[in-house]
Amino acid sequence: MRIGLSARPGDPRRVKVANHVVQFLHGKADLVVEDELAKHLSEPVASAPLADMKVDVLVVVGGDGTILHALQQNKAPVFGINMGELGFLTEIEPIELADGLRRVLSGDYFVEHRLKIAASLNNKRLPDATNEVAVKTKRIAKILQFEVGWNDREVVRLRGDGLIVATPTGSTSYAMSAGGPIVDPRVECFAVVPLAAFSLSSRPMVLPPDTVLQARIMQREKEAIVVVDGQVEVEMHEGDRLTLWASEERARFVRFRQHFYHRLRSRLS
Amino acid sequence: MRIGLSARPGDPRRVKVANHVVQFLHGKADLVVEDELAKHLSEPVASAPLADMKVDVLVVVGGDGTILHALQQNKAPVFGINMGELGFLTEIEPIELADGLRRVLSGDYFVEHRLKIAASLNNKRLPDATNEVAVKTKRIAKILQFEVGWNDREVVRLRGDGLIVATPTGSTSYAMSAGGPIVDPRVECFAVVPLAAFSLSSRPMVLPPDTVLQARIMQREKEAIVVVDGQVEVEMHEGDRLTLWASEERARFVRFRQHFYHRLRSRLS
Amino acid sequence: MRIGLSARPGDPRRVKVANHVVQFLHGKADLVVEDELAKHLSEPVASAPLADMKVDVLVVVGGDGTILHALQQNKAPVFGINMGELGFLTEIEPIELADGLRRVLSGDYFVEHRLKIAASLNNKRLPDATNEVAVKTKRIAKILQFEVGWNDREVVRLRGDGLIVATPTGSTSYAMSAGGPIVDPRVECFAVVPLAAFSLSSRPMVLPPDTVLQARIMQREKEAIVVVDGQVEVEMHEGDRLTLWASEERARFVRFRQHFYHRLRSRLS
Amino acid sequence: MRIGLSARPGDPRRVKVANHVVQFLHGKADLVVEDELAKHLSEPVASAPLADMKVDVLVVVGGDGTILHALQQNKAPVFGINMGELGFLTEIEPIELADGLRRVLSGDYFVEHRLKIAASLNNKRLPDATNEVAVKTKRIAKILQFEVGWNDREVVRLRGDGLIVATPTGSTSYAMSAGGPIVDPRVECFAVVPLAAFSLSSRPMVLPPDTVLQARIMQREKEAIVVVDGQVEVEMHEGDRLTLWASEERARFVRFRQHFYHRLRSRLS
Repeated sequence: MRIGLSARPGDPRRVKVANHVVQFLHGKADLVVEDELAKHLSEPVASAPLADMKVDVLVVVGGDGTILHALQQNKAPVFGINMGELGFLTEIEPIELADGLRRVLSGDYFVEHRLKIAASLNNKRLPDATNEVAVKTKRIAKILQFEVGWNDREVVRLRGDGLIVATPTGSTSYAMSAGGPIVDPRVECFAVVPLAAFSLSSRPMVLPPDTVLQARIMQREKEAIVVVDGQVEVEMHEGDRLTLWASEERARFVRFRQHFYHRLRSRLS
Repeated sequence: MRIGLSARPGDPRRVKVANHVVQFLHGKADLVVEDELAKHLSEPVASAPLADMKVDVLVVVGGDGTILHALQQNKAPVFGINMGELGFLTEIEPIELADGLRRVLSGDYFVEHRLKIAASLNNKRLPDATNEVAVKTKRIAKILQFEVGWNDREVVRLRGDGLIVATPTGSTSYAMSAGGPIVDPRVECFAVVPLAAFSLSSRPMVLPPDTVLQARIMQREKEAIVVVDGQVEVEMHEGDRLTLWASEERARFVRFRQHFYHRLRSRLS
Repeated sequence: MRIGLSARPGDPRRVKVANHVVQFLHGKADLVVEDELAKHLSEPVASAPLADMKVDVLVVVGGDGTILHALQQNKAPVFGINMGELGFLTEIEPIELADGLRRVLSGDYFVEHRLKIAASLNNKRLPDATNEVAVKTKRIAKILQFEVGWNDREVVRLRGDGLIVATPTGSTSYAMSAGGPIVDPRVECFAVVPLAAFSLSSRPMVLPPDTVLQARIMQREKEAIVVVDGQVEVEMHEGDRLTLWASEERARFVRFRQHFYHRLRSRLS
Repeated sequence: MRIGLSARPGDPRRVKVANHVVQFLHGKADLVVEDELAKHLSEPVASAPLADMKVDVLVVVGGDGTILHALQQNKAPVFGINMGELGFLTEIEPIELADGLRRVLSGDYFVEHRLKIAASLNNKRLPDATNEVAVKTKRIAKILQFEVGWNDREVVRLRGDGLIVATPTGSTSYAMSAGGPIVDPRVECFAVVPLAAFSLSSRPMVLPPDTVLQARIMQREKEAIVVVDGQVEVEMHEGDRLTLWASEERARFVRFRQHFYHRLRSRLS
């Protein structure tokens, strides 16, 4: 079995857990470590850039941000060890490390597939989003106007600070802060959540996964920022067309159990 | 072709439209009229109770309430002529009557199937809901505690005035007033919307259609009312168990076009 | 100093704390106990109905509901000992009992005055509300239509499940569950919060204390329930006129410190 | 009587209305026109920079943005002629121009005083806000942490996209889009409205006018933008301290009638 390992090397606690992973897997699996992280480990290991690793499972030590970053770089199923605050996307806590890796090695897990959002700006493809694509005004309030369409028909116009288009996975993250509903990941859909919408009747919407959403800025001299998973930022100008749809790829997670509602309870209290 | 006709006979404007339907269909289809309505029409017609009509299409003259009532009584596809305020569930306006009936007679329509909610109270089946099942406190605020479960596992506890479980069809009705998201009817799901929840982190949730939801009252001497589609009310006491799931039946509508977003825009502005 | 003592006698824990109060005050103050409670105490005490007590301070052992009840019966400043869940209206925890009573006896406290809502239904006065007056549909959803007025001018019409008119004191209670803002009690105002309003643009409103609010039911055969502080319920029918204004009386609380934000933090987390 | 005239000269419709004002006031008042505007008028007029005009009444032709700009430059009572979309801050429509100016000349009006927010960043005073001060993240979501204090005591911590502190005047503008309550301008208070707050229990708050609010950024390498009335933008870095309080100045408006609720109804529908 070929296993990859990724962690942001700046945090000594994470590096320590990464060292534990290396020690545990020694002689049990074919391990390759992200090159930046490899430099910080206590023993020499095979290393490669995250995007080039060909692995069966990618172990990621970190919080949801680190997982989202890894999912943008590599398509392997991610096995997340929670070093962050919430750990919605991770599977185990550090204390469960040995048992968790043992189950991975013995194949005692399933791979959960989650919807991702594909995005293009003027036909130039952006990275897929596991959580959400947010479009926000670059400067002050109340300037963006959007259309949401299906098969090129305009459906809704919005004016406000911006718009979040979230997957069910992302519905418990930024979209929730903005007032969106909690969406069970088994419901295949997008949640569209307006940010400080000018029209008081603007509401979160739940749309089917075959929807193609398009956003344009309708006013002169206005700019927006498109943010993919809180990681990648791209500027958007008047006349630019942002197109969002269900990606042909899926985010894949190594899972031992269904635990959406378990994590949700922690998030809500 | 066998066509049924229903309208609440108390409103002369609706009876007038019903008379137009009878005249138009004369000699073109096999018509049967709801018995109470038949007494108010200007010419004698074949009549039957709504629940006993065996028809290919049921023409309903009225608003969404009349449609919801008809859908609880009869399983035929409903062709709604809007005499109400919003007409989310109707297909045409009275001015389109002749053209609409002509298309129905010539088979120039499709039948849209919409999710319905099945409900039972202590294993006694209630009528299915096309829009929503609401559970509300019978008396003052802050008394109900609910659990929402999947395969008998508790998922969320709620305290508050009550709870709405809505279909996508119902998401633009009572559930929307209570803060729920707008759900495109092509997304198969339930929306669960708390009413004045005590916990400020209680949020609307979107759940998959294989969810079985259960609600119980957890406090002594408290009573709730279960309301199906705003039409049928049943009392619920401590220890009673309300169970909700996706009905094996569908609400069926005669449609000429996809018009969810068209109606939505009227509702929002 | 003349001190009253009130507690709901059904809960042995509360009776136990009441016994401690009696023992502590023995020989130090002129004590009178609510007559129902007196029957459950371990030693004989002077007793009277709550409404008839003439006291300088009324010690209330219980939660917010018990305090609200006491404030409707007696106008003395209330010194609340928290036996409930939140204790927004109480001043001390049971563990602080001896020290708290010592401060009361030595006059080492201030009296906080809080706005109350006066209410009349068809010119018949109801009890004042310390927290809120709620008007709710008696049966199913979407039936009440209200007007909010100032000097008899109509200002807003609402359709929905009902309406809460809260004091700043009540803004952290039922009104908050229904989506109302948190109002610092030093702001003299009413918060008006719609319940499941049909119009999506209906919003919580903050109105000056000289506002006279009036609500009427605008539809035939509809009934509402007026609930004062979750304690007193009165039926309201078509044509009835509910009038709300700032009471000439104040709710008075014995306080050792300003603690609105301290309690608020407990409520929010 | 000395009257000033201001309008943004870029819009020919506004210049046309400004010309009407000049013609109407010719020989009836001592008129001075904002210098940029003066260049676009059809006849020569006395002109001065907006900030230097010493006038009894300042006539402003434009929308709410133009009014807010004028109020930052000049302390005279503003008489607004609505050329914008909503015109919450204006008093008359262009069609009422002659009658309105006649009333101003004859003194048949009152001056309404509205609360303004004073702001300083690290003890450097910013312009006062008539509507609101918004603090927003400069880049992506979920980074700002705020404290709201009174007499230097911390009261609430917030994490999210930012925070709006609005006057009652501003409560129907940006703060309303972000979910804040509508505040009658006769209630002297601030409304604090979180933007996409991470904690789901974060709620709009209504605080007394003697509150001193302070915001600081608590995380390294994060920046925020402070926006005063949507007009003036200032960058804010880690360690900077933004302080907000009730300004000693008032925004002053020439009024013929109380019309808060009249304008509100237009905004809501």
